[in-house]
Amino acid sequence: MERVFNFSAGPAVIDESVLQKAASELMSYPGKGMSVLEMSHRTSMFMDIYNQAVSLLRDVMDIPETHEVLFLHGGATMQFSAVPLNLMHGHNVADYLDTGNFAHLAAEEAKKYGTVNIVASSRADNYTNIPDLSAVSFTPNADYVHITTNNTIYGTRFVSLPDTGDVPLVADASSNILSEPMDVRRFGVIYAGAQKNIGPAGVAVLLVRRDLLGKANPICPKVLDWALQAKNESMVNTPNTFAIYMIKLVCEWMLQNGGVSDFHARNREKANLLYDYLDSSKLFKNPVQPEYRSLMNVVFVTGDEAKDDAFCKFCAQNGIVNIKGHRNVGGMRASIYNAMPLAGVQKLVETMARFEKQV
Amino acid sequence: MERVFNFSAGPAVIDESVLQKAASELMSYPGKGMSVLEMSHRTSMFMDIYNQAVSLLRDVMDIPETHEVLFLHGGATMQFSAVPLNLMHGHNVADYLDTGNFAHLAAEEAKKYGTVNIVASSRADNYTNIPDLSAVSFTPNADYVHITTNNTIYGTRFVSLPDTGDVPLVADASSNILSEPMDVRRFGVIYAGAQKNIGPAGVAVLLVRRDLLGKANPICPKVLDWALQAKNESMVNTPNTFAIYMIKLVCEWMLQNGGVSDFHARNREKANLLYDYLDSSKLFKNPVQPEYRSLMNVVFVTGDEAKDDAFCKFCAQNGIVNIKGHRNVGGMRASIYNAMPLAGVQKLVETMARFEKQV
Repeated sequence: MERVFNFSAGPAVIDESVLQKAASELMSYPGKGMSVLEMSHRTSMFMDIYNQAVSLLRDVMDIPETHEVLFLHGGATMQFSAVPLNLMHGHNVADYLDTGNFAHLAAEEAKKYGTVNIVASSRADNYTNIPDLSAVSFTPNADYVHITTNNTIYGTRFVSLPDTGDVPLVADASSNILSEPMDVRRFGVIYAGAQKNIGPAGVAVLLVRRDLLGKANPICPKVLDWALQAKNESMVNTPNTFAIYMIKLVCEWMLQNGGVSDFHARNREKANLLYDYLDSSKLFKNPVQPEYRSLMNVVFVTGDEAKDDAFCKFCAQNGIVNIKGHRNVGGMRASIYNAMPLAGVQKLVETMARFEKQV
Repeated sequence: MERVFNFSAGPAVIDESVLQKAASELMSYPGKGMSVLEMSHRTSMFMDIYNQAVSLLRDVMDIPETHEVLFLHGGATMQFSAVPLNLMHGHNVADYLDTGNFAHLAAEEAKKYGTVNIVASSRADNYTNIPDLSAVSFTPNADYVHITTNNTIYGTRFVSLPDTGDVPLVADASSNILSEPMDVRRFGVIYAGAQKNIGPAGVAVLLVRRDLLGKANPICPKVLDWALQAKNESMVNTPNTFAIYMIKLVCEWMLQNGGVSDFHARNREKANLLYDYLDSSKLFKNPVQPEYRSLMNVVFVTGDEAKDDAFCKFCAQNGIVNIKGHRNVGGMRASIYNAMPLAGVQKLVETMARFEKQV
């Protein structure tokens, strides 16, 4: 069957060449006589894959040696708990910026372990913008400040970072990691569920500044203890070996295709194509304040639920799937991660134009 | 390259037909135009796979409707924390039977959350047996009793279950689940890392009696809250979708090959072949008290480290890999899970015999 254009918010499209490589090696990893699925994580053959994945990700993201690179179980939501369990140890207080659904959930989870100050929120605007960072007053001596760099459901992104002084900045970058340059040095912690831009579901990438390690809450489950994971190269227990292998393949593919800067340029081209069409459309509208528009998740609505549904059906007939928006926003959402080709966005825009003429 | 015989303790061998099926579908799941790796967990196409995995596992293990079936992140070690976080809510005390390395680690982790009574231990015997269960005195009103049904490192197994009365019995069955019939009704909870007998690494199977749900500790990370996971069909966050798909394939393969009872018969045949050889050997010895010998992990030593090393090298030259024992025991260990064919064990025994003649 012909490949569809899959605009899913995650798990999401993976480049065809990456899938081909994985499929070709699945029965037998070159020279090893077994599948990567069958490799003990304690063997040198798997450690080679692990070390390559770490090293390639360091190259792709320009991660300095001040930061550990870990591949941990469970996605971003597991790290919602791990962040306070590892970092709330001073005044047991942290600042959260509430800019979307996952930002909100992260803050709610942190309340189990200490005091959470919501220092800025766009919740009252249904998250159609990012609050003015210059107006935020951060808590002196907070253990950390938490942001969500791209808001998957609402289609917004931070275009600049808050200045948090000596307080570590912690970011959930699940839906825009690897899509544009990020200065890792500005962050105490970056974490991301892999299933959007990095690989398959079931693993989170964690970058953590080494000086922040070693102060976990005594009630922290050992698998969530970052210092212990760092000491054990992500192998306090058996890691998600296949996902780590896939991360290696995705990083190789990115480096073969110009790295983050080239992907960023392509992502802007794809997003501009779609936003330009939306701005010219009489039927479809993007509800986001333009300066905060996400490059990864483009939300659009007609304002008429029946038309939204008809459009989603029309898309499915044209090989475009998973375009329905999240229930919190309604309408449609096109997630156009690194692996979504320009051709997919062109096809979507053509399909939107054809639909608009019909109705 | 020809497939090797992989005796790894986990991640471990997967049947060739299962790998072939996965490889053939990896580029495009039949009729869907995308890989299973790209499927949103919120779509009906993935929910079909999920529901099939649950239903097939229910068939394979004869799991009654009194028990939930969940596929959770992180393997058994993550559940070491989840068990007390979900079940310690009465007197905040639990009984643990210390019969091996993972049993010990599970008890250590539980101490973070309440009182742990080690009610029996074979630690002083270097875990070469299972303590006499009739002599154990369990704590009245304990929240649960925890056992490890098969001890991967030491090669022992429970041959009968303790009678814990009304106190729920909780079992880590990572290394013998699906290898022999288990009466699920006797357990409050069974959990298992998948990477030995069920599928790839990065997921744990959890069977939990429904009446035990809903009393999690308020500090339990939400992803570890079993009641919340049950309510959300294992999808409090994005699950390990690929691993769940592989579990479905493994269950299909098991049902096509006679189910648990036939696998149990084959497992006994494989284990007997190896233990019979060991009992007749003048070079190799199995240190385990015979009645407690594992069907899954067969430990053997020569008593001479140089000979052990020479044997492992000899194996590698003959297409037998990952036969080196765990450092706690030394010597060798052959993990002969469901997917290890009889031919692999025959080859191992022949290789042992050839080596024994040489030295």
